[in-house]
Amino acid sequence: MQPYELSLAAAADAIRARRMSPVELVDSVLDRIEQVDHRLNAYVTVTAEQARRTAREAEREITRGHYRGPLHGIPVGLKDLIDVAGMATSASSRVRSGHRAQADSTVAARLASAGAVLLGKTHTHEFAYGLITPQTGNAWDAGRIAGGSSGGSATAVASGAATFALGTDTGGSIRVPSALNGAVGLKPTYGLVPRHGVTSLSWSLDHVGPITRTVEDAALVLGVLAGHDPRDPASLAAPAADYRPDGGEDLTGLRVGVPRTYYFDHVEPEVEAAVRRAIGRLEALGARLVGIDIPMTRYIQATQWGLMVPEATAYHDRTLRSAPELFQDDVRVLLEAGELMTAGDYLRAQRSRTLMRREWAGLLDRVDVIAAPTVPMTAVEAGTETVTWPDGTTEAVSDAFVRLSSPANITGLPALSLPVGHDGAGMPIGMQLLGRPLGERTLLRVGHAYEQTQPARAPAPVA
Amino acid sequence: MQPYELSLAAAADAIRARRMSPVELVDSVLDRIEQVDHRLNAYVTVTAEQARRTAREAEREITRGHYRGPLHGIPVGLKDLIDVAGMATSASSRVRSGHRAQADSTVAARLASAGAVLLGKTHTHEFAYGLITPQTGNAWDAGRIAGGSSGGSATAVASGAATFALGTDTGGSIRVPSALNGAVGLKPTYGLVPRHGVTSLSWSLDHVGPITRTVEDAALVLGVLAGHDPRDPASLAAPAADYRPDGGEDLTGLRVGVPRTYYFDHVEPEVEAAVRRAIGRLEALGARLVGIDIPMTRYIQATQWGLMVPEATAYHDRTLRSAPELFQDDVRVLLEAGELMTAGDYLRAQRSRTLMRREWAGLLDRVDVIAAPTVPMTAVEAGTETVTWPDGTTEAVSDAFVRLSSPANITGLPALSLPVGHDGAGMPIGMQLLGRPLGERTLLRVGHAYEQTQPARAPAPVA
Repeated sequence: MQPYELSLAAAADAIRARRMSPVELVDSVLDRIEQVDHRLNAYVTVTAEQARRTAREAEREITRGHYRGPLHGIPVGLKDLIDVAGMATSASSRVRSGHRAQADSTVAARLASAGAVLLGKTHTHEFAYGLITPQTGNAWDAGRIAGGSSGGSATAVASGAATFALGTDTGGSIRVPSALNGAVGLKPTYGLVPRHGVTSLSWSLDHVGPITRTVEDAALVLGVLAGHDPRDPASLAAPAADYRPDGGEDLTGLRVGVPRTYYFDHVEPEVEAAVRRAIGRLEALGARLVGIDIPMTRYIQATQWGLMVPEATAYHDRTLRSAPELFQDDVRVLLEAGELMTAGDYLRAQRSRTLMRREWAGLLDRVDVIAAPTVPMTAVEAGTETVTWPDGTTEAVSDAFVRLSSPANITGLPALSLPVGHDGAGMPIGMQLLGRPLGERTLLRVGHAYEQTQPARAPAPVA
Repeated sequence: MQPYELSLAAAADAIRARRMSPVELVDSVLDRIEQVDHRLNAYVTVTAEQARRTAREAEREITRGHYRGPLHGIPVGLKDLIDVAGMATSASSRVRSGHRAQADSTVAARLASAGAVLLGKTHTHEFAYGLITPQTGNAWDAGRIAGGSSGGSATAVASGAATFALGTDTGGSIRVPSALNGAVGLKPTYGLVPRHGVTSLSWSLDHVGPITRTVEDAALVLGVLAGHDPRDPASLAAPAADYRPDGGEDLTGLRVGVPRTYYFDHVEPEVEAAVRRAIGRLEALGARLVGIDIPMTRYIQATQWGLMVPEATAYHDRTLRSAPELFQDDVRVLLEAGELMTAGDYLRAQRSRTLMRREWAGLLDRVDVIAAPTVPMTAVEAGTETVTWPDGTTEAVSDAFVRLSSPANITGLPALSLPVGHDGAGMPIGMQLLGRPLGERTLLRVGHAYEQTQPARAPAPVA
């Protein structure tokens, strides 16, 4: 097994035990980038020389006995919305031409302190405003979409071109590409991971979180990212926690909510079957399945768009007036739509969110987690714009992609996507676990227990 | 001294020691209402018979040794935005004709549990959307305005027609009429007192709080009102606290911020002199005065209006479409203005608020409280629409009234108004103390220390 194939936890064990040097790991991942990224185009920038220097520094520190913890010497890709001092934050946009970040974002600074080795910046749908990432190919079939907006991060992790990565998630942008590429993606509780220095799409819905190859890896990264920062006005003063799952597979006593409504409507049969099989695994591990009804489903889409569109326009309003031609057409149209919305439209969405939060809190009094598909379908061929469901209804691909993930953005609840198989074409399928506010430990424990029942996953072969 | 003239604390002492019966107190206050309210019109409804029954019940309980605490047997007026089961909540509006509340608001239920005796409901500027309360006269001169929107509550307390009252405060509506009538008014930290069952004006700026005759009384009422209620989405899970000041006058070590900007601009000389005299008292008690500059003053008015106007319109949008003629002209015009605001206007105000909160938090790292005038002027004659300042600028009375109080609504910081003298015409002057989030104890301690240096205040004579 090549070092680039290792999970973060396995690589960290080898580095801590000095069976592997960070230099060896980083060289292997950089070679893998060279081997696959001309096909996948996950990276905007690869900082190979800087990464090798950081790896040698990590090697020296560890040799001298200064081991910083499980991210020390581990190579990471950052979605290119995340500021790193001295580098451009391109947001995959012409608007950011000539950009240069003055300081590290909070998450970049925390990763650097933990000893992680920056590989480079990964592609996003322009300014995270879309669910495709048109620049990037899927790790399992480069002719299919990566999903978005954190498509570069998910493709890099799934293909072995990063041991882990960070993404952002406003309507599903960590979980959707993770599901479509066969990676693990965690959208933490709103406010748990500070967003200072991360370009905003919609500040009341934006989250930063890890994309990894295993659930345990997501826990290790979250442990470094989480914690209060007053420079993010929404940052929570949550107590520090150890998120690493304890390894037990027994789920006796856990109540798993299985939606009777919404989450299995208009879902591809292979996706539904794989998710229900995985839910069956949780039951076999001792969990009790509880049928639940999802509240206020008719309001989900309008609430997500009613919050996101005006906030995104407010963020970009100067550029929209001075140089609208720099945006891609799809993004510019959305930003212009935001100019037409009234305060009343936005406030209706805010009030709907308040009611939805209350209803979901009641739902999560009755169950510990909710299990559902992450995305109703697997990755489509690039250029596919709509999907037609068996009842004859047609849905935009981007609407379908965001449909099952946006409730966790509206409510701020934590949500974890993990791979639960492949469809007949070999494309990955993701299951989503949703939990209570600050319930990440439970999500990670359940996801890890499921993973223990499955064979270890290798990176996508990238034929 | 008649019972109606007693402070809440003095009345509670007499009731607890069984030197006075709640029946005696309530009868005295009801007589006072009969004597003065035909001139002042503070009350929408007086529930005299029900009050007498509740007072007799309190008397029986106390005689049997079941003393509930300092509000037991104390008569209270509630601003008529606050639901009491079975009664109309008129909001002083024709829109609410035929209304009947199904259940108690949280604050009404908490007062009832504490044994307070409801006297009736007090006038508000229609739906709290104004700073005048045109129905009600000032306790010190019925031809002058009461201020608003909690004008009925403040006039009732100041004239002896209630031992205490509750008001609501969205831009100053507890503090402004308290200052103009010579009462004490406390706007608590945003989220400390639950608003469930209280008609909303602007939910991100609305607060409920006490209007009393002394600072100590405000502390006693706050102790009963504060505490989490999940039915108010903004309710804080703050720990229970005893707000009663310990009685010490020594303020050694306390840093009092004295604004060099904003709070003393365009302020009547007699108001400025009285407030600076009171600040001098705090210094004489040991406080250290620190000159401070108020941040982002150019944004205060636009932020207050940018948040309030669209939220108020969103709340009333159905009535505005179905029966706009039921609103008074001034309120209807404001509600209609809200329909014209864009989501971008509202979001600019939201972002400005976020920045203002941060700047004020920095300010309150350097001082413990800020002392300033509550209102730039004293109560004007009814019908006065503008004020002209010595530099020739003219300001709408309602703009002047809200100018010094709205920063505490935008930031959510607690603010206490207390009387610091009268002008040459005999009209009361208020000083405002602003503090840190959940810093009510400090505000009340400082206000109480100041009060201890002053002669006891009697209710307004109501000639």
